[in-house]
Amino acid sequence: MASLDAVLAKIDANLEASLERLFAFLAIKSISTDPAYAGECRRAAQWVVEQLQHIGFEASVRPTEGHPMVVGKLRARRADAPHVLFYGHYDVQPPDPLELWQTPPFEPRLAETPHGKQIVARGVADDKGQLMTFLEACRAFAEAGELPCHVTILIEGEEESGSRSLPGFLAAHKAELAADLVLVCDTSMWDRKTPAITTMLRGLVLEEVIIRGADRDLHSGMFGGAAVNPIHVLARVIADLHDAQGRITVPGFYDDVIDLPQEIAEQWRHLPSEGHDLLGNVGLSVPAGEAGRSLLEMIWSRPTCDVNGIIGGYTGPGSKTVLPAQASAKVSFRLVSNQDPAKIVANFRAFVRARLPADCHAEFISHGASGALQLPFESKALSRASAALREEWGRATVLCGCGGSIPIVGEFKHDLGMDSLMIGFGLEDDRIHSPNEKYELSSYHKGARSWARVLAALAA
Amino acid sequence: MASLDAVLAKIDANLEASLERLFAFLAIKSISTDPAYAGECRRAAQWVVEQLQHIGFEASVRPTEGHPMVVGKLRARRADAPHVLFYGHYDVQPPDPLELWQTPPFEPRLAETPHGKQIVARGVADDKGQLMTFLEACRAFAEAGELPCHVTILIEGEEESGSRSLPGFLAAHKAELAADLVLVCDTSMWDRKTPAITTMLRGLVLEEVIIRGADRDLHSGMFGGAAVNPIHVLARVIADLHDAQGRITVPGFYDDVIDLPQEIAEQWRHLPSEGHDLLGNVGLSVPAGEAGRSLLEMIWSRPTCDVNGIIGGYTGPGSKTVLPAQASAKVSFRLVSNQDPAKIVANFRAFVRARLPADCHAEFISHGASGALQLPFESKALSRASAALREEWGRATVLCGCGGSIPIVGEFKHDLGMDSLMIGFGLEDDRIHSPNEKYELSSYHKGARSWARVLAALAA
Repeated sequence: MASLDAVLAKIDANLEASLERLFAFLAIKSISTDPAYAGECRRAAQWVVEQLQHIGFEASVRPTEGHPMVVGKLRARRADAPHVLFYGHYDVQPPDPLELWQTPPFEPRLAETPHGKQIVARGVADDKGQLMTFLEACRAFAEAGELPCHVTILIEGEEESGSRSLPGFLAAHKAELAADLVLVCDTSMWDRKTPAITTMLRGLVLEEVIIRGADRDLHSGMFGGAAVNPIHVLARVIADLHDAQGRITVPGFYDDVIDLPQEIAEQWRHLPSEGHDLLGNVGLSVPAGEAGRSLLEMIWSRPTCDVNGIIGGYTGPGSKTVLPAQASAKVSFRLVSNQDPAKIVANFRAFVRARLPADCHAEFISHGASGALQLPFESKALSRASAALREEWGRATVLCGCGGSIPIVGEFKHDLGMDSLMIGFGLEDDRIHSPNEKYELSSYHKGARSWARVLAALAA
Repeated sequence: MASLDAVLAKIDANLEASLERLFAFLAIKSISTDPAYAGECRRAAQWVVEQLQHIGFEASVRPTEGHPMVVGKLRARRADAPHVLFYGHYDVQPPDPLELWQTPPFEPRLAETPHGKQIVARGVADDKGQLMTFLEACRAFAEAGELPCHVTILIEGEEESGSRSLPGFLAAHKAELAADLVLVCDTSMWDRKTPAITTMLRGLVLEEVIIRGADRDLHSGMFGGAAVNPIHVLARVIADLHDAQGRITVPGFYDDVIDLPQEIAEQWRHLPSEGHDLLGNVGLSVPAGEAGRSLLEMIWSRPTCDVNGIIGGYTGPGSKTVLPAQASAKVSFRLVSNQDPAKIVANFRAFVRARLPADCHAEFISHGASGALQLPFESKALSRASAALREEWGRATVLCGCGGSIPIVGEFKHDLGMDSLMIGFGLEDDRIHSPNEKYELSSYHKGARSWARVLAALAA
């Protein structure tokens, strides 16, 4: 097997040529949400296939009912090498509003900034530049002799428009896509100097509750003070959902929550916070969650309950003296660890019913319920990848969480039984989905070097 | 002065002729809200003027920017007789939906029912039949010799469409309309056997509160658990507005509430409840207000606080994982006795501000604030009118409240300095504003007799 140093040297030597390749990729207007660009999406898929074939992959465009998939395969010489499935997407967001771009979105350029060079173009950070870091690492291995892992590549073209074809495609190609581990390159570093692996994704329970009182809206003059008001009942339920310490009061809610390992909590508390004024950026100053938890714990590793919407009675201009017949709220729970979505739903509904006064009834509508995903902290792949990134960047890798959900990761886990290692080199200020999207040249270059180190480490 | 018995005998003898007059009045399609019927409104005003002139009033149609007013004056021979201002309205609601009427709405008829005869036509209970009871009482006095009181009549034609011309007309004709007392005939009896005088109208404070957190809507995955949620803050405020006994917790709220005289509370507790299943009619069973208060106290003599509307976040179909930047509620207070609207507003706003966590701000919008109106229980006019009604109906007069507001009564009080005695002979099942509106023949006949007794009593 080629030495890692030789592979890294190839990546360095290839940088200029690899940038030319990326620029050609970025020039393709693969906007998946707009049917007018379906041809450009096909062209992007074909372009990726050609790149893969050039590296040595057996690769093909796979038609779907929407935009095509790309699948490629290249085996390591060592039969018992680990097998990874790499996921990325070639489609991009629409570039609107065009007038806010300093240069045309599909004419990539290098810009000099005080932080160093940046590549500017639609889709460079999300996700074309990111997926190319992995391809360039594979290219360097192939040029140096062979890949250290068996690699299957899956690149989709509908990530920015709902990934409608993906679940069916995964189900239909379960055997072909089977691997030991999924590698996803669609996330960010902690900051421009600190690498990160996303190891936990919160789950999500979406409940709607409708509380009904009288069988019609009432005049608040004739009935006010005597008839039950569903808005008051709903407000009481919502107010009761949290205690004074910000903890959720639904019975049994924390039963299956595993506390964060001490060393991870410590790492989070001491993270450099350059560019991470999460609250300050949106006009807030004080974390409003559970007392005694750090901000990162609140959004990464602790479960939450939030009302996402509420409506009842008259909400137009001015006033109307109505006692409404009903009021409703959309309530969501972010789940962590082993919290069971079905148990949370049942306990929440019982919690509401226990607070209904005489003459009130509650109806519940489920808008979805999925559990959290967590890469075990004791995973060998995680510790090896973490060490590899540390080698490249010279700083400890942050094992971070993600407050939101990444549906593809759930599908890999639940439908194909595979854990995902989410490693990406984006930065918070990359302006993804916005005008003048950029990707640091250092992200592109050291990203490829990082993947080379990770692949080597996984095979060690 | 003519003997009351002679006047009552005249009313009895006139019944058939007075019904013919009422039917002629009811045939006029004086629908004030529809400009197509402006001519019919003028015709109704002219018809009332002619009736008044025929009785002996000096009367005229008074043009306004909307539909005209009618003003009439007839003095008693005794210079020191009390002076009353009678108010009613000649306009009616549109008759839609027409297909639900058993006979055409402007072709009045007498219907036989198990309870006795009913007059069926649009506007018969609201308010043509009611105002005619007063005119027929005046006619009988005039025919018998003279009126016992100086009487000024004010009949408007925009009551069903917002009374837009009325405030300006009152202000411009303050001296001409001055009287000792206003008589209003636009309310109901307690039931078909029991007369009522409405002596208290609750006031109304209308506040809108908007609570703001972050400077934009946030993703509940990225921020949930860390960013303050204005819906939660608003729900806490609303939940805190009432204690477990249903009392309102705004500081000082009950300071200026005078407790109901014991004998009135007693009267209310023992009222026959025929046809008065207020809650059962709207699908409720349990009074939801202050513990230890009767249902009638809750809606007539106690102050209330109700949220009439609430909105925040995503309220469309399905779900959206948003942490909203703001949430708002429309909150109304019904006031009684001497509660000061300005003080209630100030205390409510302070109550909300005291519950704002860090990073939250509240904006308030006032949609109006008016105090309660209460005829003093010790009023001589009230006790005389009450006794007069008891004479006619053979049952104690119910001194009732009205949970809602009647704007004209507030204007008479605040702009002209006059108390109003609200006496009417409508019944709850009169279907006002609905198809097949009716007025009991007994309401019409005994209503005129009642007014004769009241006028005599006021002059005694």
